[in-house]
Amino acid sequence: MNQNYIIPDAWSIIEEGFDKDRVMSSESLFSIGNGAMGQRANFEEMYTGETFQGSYIAGVYYPDKTKVGWWKNGYPEYFAKVLNGPNWIGIDIEINDEILDLNQVEVSNFRRELNMKEGWLGRSYSAKLKNGTEIEVHVKRFLSLDLDELGAIKYEIKPLNNSARINFNPYVDSGVKNRDANWEETFWEPIISGIDNEFGFVQAKTFKTGFNVVTFMENSIFINDQKQKIHSSENIQSETKVQLKYEVDVNQNETASLVKFGGYTVSTNHDEKELVKAAQSVLAKANDLGFEKLFQNQKKAWAKIWEMADITIDGDVKAQQGIRFNIFQLNQTYLGKDARLNIGPKGFTGEKYGGSTYWDTEAYCLPFYMATKNQEVARNLLVYRFNHLEKAIENAEKLGFKNGAALYPMVTMNGEECHNEWEITFEEIHRNGAIAFAIYNYVRYTGDFSYVPEMGLEVLIGIARFWHQRVNWSEAKQKFVMLGVTGPNEYENNINNNFYTNYLAKWCIDYTIENIEKLEKEFNSDYIRILNKVRLSKSEIAEWKNVSDNIYFPFSEEHGVYLQQDGFLDKDLKPVSQLDSSERPLNQKWSWDRILRSPYIKQADVLQGFYFFEDDFSVEELEKHFDFYEPLTVHESSLSPCVHSIQAAKLGRMNQAYEFYLRTSRLDLDDYNKEVEEGLHITSMAGTWMSIVEGFGGMRVKNGKLYFEPKIPIEWKSFSFKVNFRNQILKVNVSHEGTEFSLDGNDHLDVNLNGKSVRIEPGNFVKV
Amino acid sequence: MNQNYIIPDAWSIIEEGFDKDRVMSSESLFSIGNGAMGQRANFEEMYTGETFQGSYIAGVYYPDKTKVGWWKNGYPEYFAKVLNGPNWIGIDIEINDEILDLNQVEVSNFRRELNMKEGWLGRSYSAKLKNGTEIEVHVKRFLSLDLDELGAIKYEIKPLNNSARINFNPYVDSGVKNRDANWEETFWEPIISGIDNEFGFVQAKTFKTGFNVVTFMENSIFINDQKQKIHSSENIQSETKVQLKYEVDVNQNETASLVKFGGYTVSTNHDEKELVKAAQSVLAKANDLGFEKLFQNQKKAWAKIWEMADITIDGDVKAQQGIRFNIFQLNQTYLGKDARLNIGPKGFTGEKYGGSTYWDTEAYCLPFYMATKNQEVARNLLVYRFNHLEKAIENAEKLGFKNGAALYPMVTMNGEECHNEWEITFEEIHRNGAIAFAIYNYVRYTGDFSYVPEMGLEVLIGIARFWHQRVNWSEAKQKFVMLGVTGPNEYENNINNNFYTNYLAKWCIDYTIENIEKLEKEFNSDYIRILNKVRLSKSEIAEWKNVSDNIYFPFSEEHGVYLQQDGFLDKDLKPVSQLDSSERPLNQKWSWDRILRSPYIKQADVLQGFYFFEDDFSVEELEKHFDFYEPLTVHESSLSPCVHSIQAAKLGRMNQAYEFYLRTSRLDLDDYNKEVEEGLHITSMAGTWMSIVEGFGGMRVKNGKLYFEPKIPIEWKSFSFKVNFRNQILKVNVSHEGTEFSLDGNDHLDVNLNGKSVRIEPGNFVKV
Repeated sequence: MNQNYIIPDAWSIIEEGFDKDRVMSSESLFSIGNGAMGQRANFEEMYTGETFQGSYIAGVYYPDKTKVGWWKNGYPEYFAKVLNGPNWIGIDIEINDEILDLNQVEVSNFRRELNMKEGWLGRSYSAKLKNGTEIEVHVKRFLSLDLDELGAIKYEIKPLNNSARINFNPYVDSGVKNRDANWEETFWEPIISGIDNEFGFVQAKTFKTGFNVVTFMENSIFINDQKQKIHSSENIQSETKVQLKYEVDVNQNETASLVKFGGYTVSTNHDEKELVKAAQSVLAKANDLGFEKLFQNQKKAWAKIWEMADITIDGDVKAQQGIRFNIFQLNQTYLGKDARLNIGPKGFTGEKYGGSTYWDTEAYCLPFYMATKNQEVARNLLVYRFNHLEKAIENAEKLGFKNGAALYPMVTMNGEECHNEWEITFEEIHRNGAIAFAIYNYVRYTGDFSYVPEMGLEVLIGIARFWHQRVNWSEAKQKFVMLGVTGPNEYENNINNNFYTNYLAKWCIDYTIENIEKLEKEFNSDYIRILNKVRLSKSEIAEWKNVSDNIYFPFSEEHGVYLQQDGFLDKDLKPVSQLDSSERPLNQKWSWDRILRSPYIKQADVLQGFYFFEDDFSVEELEKHFDFYEPLTVHESSLSPCVHSIQAAKLGRMNQAYEFYLRTSRLDLDDYNKEVEEGLHITSMAGTWMSIVEGFGGMRVKNGKLYFEPKIPIEWKSFSFKVNFRNQILKVNVSHEGTEFSLDGNDHLDVNLNGKSVRIEPGNFVKV
Repeated sequence: MNQNYIIPDAWSIIEEGFDKDRVMSSESLFSIGNGAMGQRANFEEMYTGETFQGSYIAGVYYPDKTKVGWWKNGYPEYFAKVLNGPNWIGIDIEINDEILDLNQVEVSNFRRELNMKEGWLGRSYSAKLKNGTEIEVHVKRFLSLDLDELGAIKYEIKPLNNSARINFNPYVDSGVKNRDANWEETFWEPIISGIDNEFGFVQAKTFKTGFNVVTFMENSIFINDQKQKIHSSENIQSETKVQLKYEVDVNQNETASLVKFGGYTVSTNHDEKELVKAAQSVLAKANDLGFEKLFQNQKKAWAKIWEMADITIDGDVKAQQGIRFNIFQLNQTYLGKDARLNIGPKGFTGEKYGGSTYWDTEAYCLPFYMATKNQEVARNLLVYRFNHLEKAIENAEKLGFKNGAALYPMVTMNGEECHNEWEITFEEIHRNGAIAFAIYNYVRYTGDFSYVPEMGLEVLIGIARFWHQRVNWSEAKQKFVMLGVTGPNEYENNINNNFYTNYLAKWCIDYTIENIEKLEKEFNSDYIRILNKVRLSKSEIAEWKNVSDNIYFPFSEEHGVYLQQDGFLDKDLKPVSQLDSSERPLNQKWSWDRILRSPYIKQADVLQGFYFFEDDFSVEELEKHFDFYEPLTVHESSLSPCVHSIQAAKLGRMNQAYEFYLRTSRLDLDDYNKEVEEGLHITSMAGTWMSIVEGFGGMRVKNGKLYFEPKIPIEWKSFSFKVNFRNQILKVNVSHEGTEFSLDGNDHLDVNLNGKSVRIEPGNFVKV
């Protein structure tokens, strides 16, 4: 744990007291989003202290020309950068002619709240200005779930020690820059701006990608909640910025407020020529409702999300706060409405990593969305990859593969690869397996097989072809081997026979063949259509099968474990516990070659295989591998603790499981990895959800049925979660006394609890 | 072979006919240098066609901020760039008011000659201008060996079809750019410029490194070789450029000439404030002599170099031209006068690779300089590394090594590492071994042991410490292993137990201990001084010895060969001959991952070990390894063919040896690697010399004595070379009839020819 200023609360993230050193951390932690856009918790008013400005629009990116020291054939031309969008929240404020800037004034009673239950960001403080005026400020901001192009701000100021002339100067501004820009270029080309009474907009287009965005605002002024007929007294307008000016005189202890509606309309959703009209239309709806009604609707929309997604933990407020923070941020990032979108590792909270889609989506996020949303949401994540299949085939061709072999990108926005470290871009190919596994996982969980004949089999065939071509026959081993890969543990590069990757490759081939056979029998017209389209012959399938039957897995007889890769036992296997704390985190303290030749593991690698393919191994085998690998694991990836938490729980090691749980659920709140300023670890938050449901809840799906083996940490009184299982909503409550089920559905549900069958009828709840 | 326009000639490189597409290739091939400066064969007059401008000053570089996509701990801050220096050769020419530009006029009888025997660059052509004037032009240019800050140009123009007004407008210009600049920065800061009659200069300073350089010129005009009292009619002067203007009226068939003396004076050799004075002083000497006398001196100076360095090949003019081109370029690049300098891979012919010093110097260049120069020259190359020992220790510390372990840089200008591909910078550590081997090689060849007690042992101890710390104990193998290295074959990265590196490591430790023991007995005061200085204990030495005694070498019983690295036999060992030619060169056609997992070898790796440590292996072992590895070798490094040529000759495979010889000696002339425009492969040229002397000549040094086993390619009548062996000059002439020796020295010399002892008396020659 590296910070400890967030006040424990079951439903809110709260900060009290103003500390300039925490501003960038809080900008990340208090981020808000609505799936279509999101933003860091930057102040509306001018702030001259250290800040990291960020407002992001889903799917809008910039292809930043690749920067490398030495070019390797096959590098993509560009890296898709998460784009800092135009600013729509800005409100310059003057109080009796002095600019309000928390870096300059005396601040007291500062409080920030991210209300997760209701989906809003609040901030209040008192300030004493240099001119002696004392004020009290309350700000509330939210991004509407209902009107997802709209955000709303209510900025209230009350003079405390005398009357005051207050200037609210709200603006929109496309003259913004990215922190992360390879060539210090500007990413936005201004197009036009406009003002019409209290409405203002700037239109700008991203260079190269040509995303056209209207950033808009409309403002109104209130005194003591009475709307005032005050118009902007002076407009400032340039190509990139529009600013309106409102001046009000307020008596002592009266409250002046600016309500600012703002947001984006984007050419991905509207005709380019209709963007201003679209902005006016969303504003019209907002004005009809007004701030208060919009706010009530926001609460309702979030209540609906929580109704399904909430997890309660009784008796441990920090654990409770942690899991809700994770669930809240996931829902802010991706709601599954739009199959073009995906879940970026930093969501709408920062620029780092760029791109939107990593294998995190399939390996970590899918289970969360499957269980807490309609089936369609998870399906959209699969459709996304089907839509990128052609690009994945092109990507593989660039690396010398043929015949429709597909390699999905490590990082992408539009299906094109945009990463450029050779050891990852070209070699961290296990990502391909996670995409196939997600299809299996989706079918297993939802029972919806239709994706496979419609789209999935083509994806599987491309992936199977890739693996078939990627191995080679080793005369020495008389087996197929896979040379030169990087596993999930990125602290090894260009290794041979990574157990996890080889195992995935075999599994992908087998699963693809299984589905081809199933389609041949059960979906014959799809079978014929697809096989003709991809020109797949029985003899090619036989070649795949030969690879799958004869692929090599490195195994140590001495230790009784599969080896992470060939030669792993040549390393100096000193456990992490013997490292001096001054050497951690390794990725900040050690040179890369030293990390590579060490035995230290960034995140689950062999154990990731044991997580995916749990049923292929006995608990004794899991235990042996856990005991071999976990002591060498430094968990310097956000994706590491959750898998280990689930496995520790399975092994009944509740202390360890609980420790890993805190680490994953409060990773950002407590800043374990010393980098929260850069944004939140969104994708790993789904791993936190898995730690509860699969770890402590012990939930599995087998043969179309839910299995539970719950285990509760000693620190908790009880915990509960809900899952949408095949359109029935099952609530599970686990306490030290036992497990309660209740069902919201049309039919009974048979589940398996600790090896025994339990029938649950709708409406009732069963305590076992 | 990819080009074939250079006219075969024993002593000159000749191009006939003007072809714009060949300009950049010829700019490389016709480069001139004198060890202190050098330049590409750019035209003096304006040329608006495609050109790569380059003029370089020994030791003057720019630290270009490192550009990488993803930073790894341990990367150096900058890459030392070879710096394109100010232009001193430029002469704008107008003929009857039309600018002379070979890209615009009609050119005929174009001929270029690089006269290697005499050390000058000539160019002649006829041109018909757009205004109808026809002229004949002769240009001669050389960089003086005697006055190494000076270059001289004689530019002659003869109007052919009528009289002409000719304007010669010579200039110096520091407003130049590098082609290779990470951030498109300018590297030169202008300081001041000046004109004094026919003398002009610009002074500029490199940003960051602060090298201060005066670029100067002085001009005179001749008609029919009669010096004219013509002064510059109009001066142009700015901060970065000084240009003088001479106007002459010439009758038909009379010749007007501009003689331009120019060059650089540099703050590395003079007080910064004295640079202009130094320029004037070198010009005074030049003016005293005049162009013709300077030119005579140039011929004499080159004759002296050739007297010692020449290799003759009778009966094969292309082979003869090739070897002389190699010897000439090496002597243009480095003459061994200045221990601060070294041999850059592109010498003074291009910017690529940057830096000046790679392991090429020790592994390839040292033998050439040992045998063809005074001993002092080779010793200077060793002193250079001693002077960088402290930096090598710092470099190792950055990577986590301790206790005085030294890792010499992959690329350097001043001892600091400045490379930034992790797989090379951090892992291609065998370079450290080549530096130790050079000490051994120097002592073996020269018999001069004094470098070891004075300096060398400290270098060896730093290197031995590095190897000792770089290995780790493998419980599995019960041996010391070395994980995560890159061998000379850079088509493998981050491999384990590279045979070559492990073998070098063992050898370095053994050789260091041997020298410590020798010093203890024979140079006891040095022994005590050094061991105290580096705090070396007997127990540390014992630890080294344990590593050397128990280091692991991968070996295949089945094939009877040492393996390039662990797991090499897992590859698909299809020989290069089965690759389609459209896939070559691999480094341009294949993605990096594909190259890495292939068995293809860029340059000698295991065989490099067999070359260095020939006496440790039998001829049968060499044959087995050669037959195993050479068919997998693509020779895509310029350093590859020479080693293979030597080994093929040793194995009596003369066709193959000859083919490799042509490839190494005419690598640039025939542009085997399709990149000659970027500059010449200077360091591999020393490998060409080795191919003759060690390959066909079969020369070795054993126990202080020269051994020869000459073998002559069927294509040649005879070949001869000279070596300076311990201050005696031995000439060896090999023909199909036998071998002749002649000796220039004070004492007889006993050599071993094909296993028999031969005594050679000074002055005589012996035919065997």
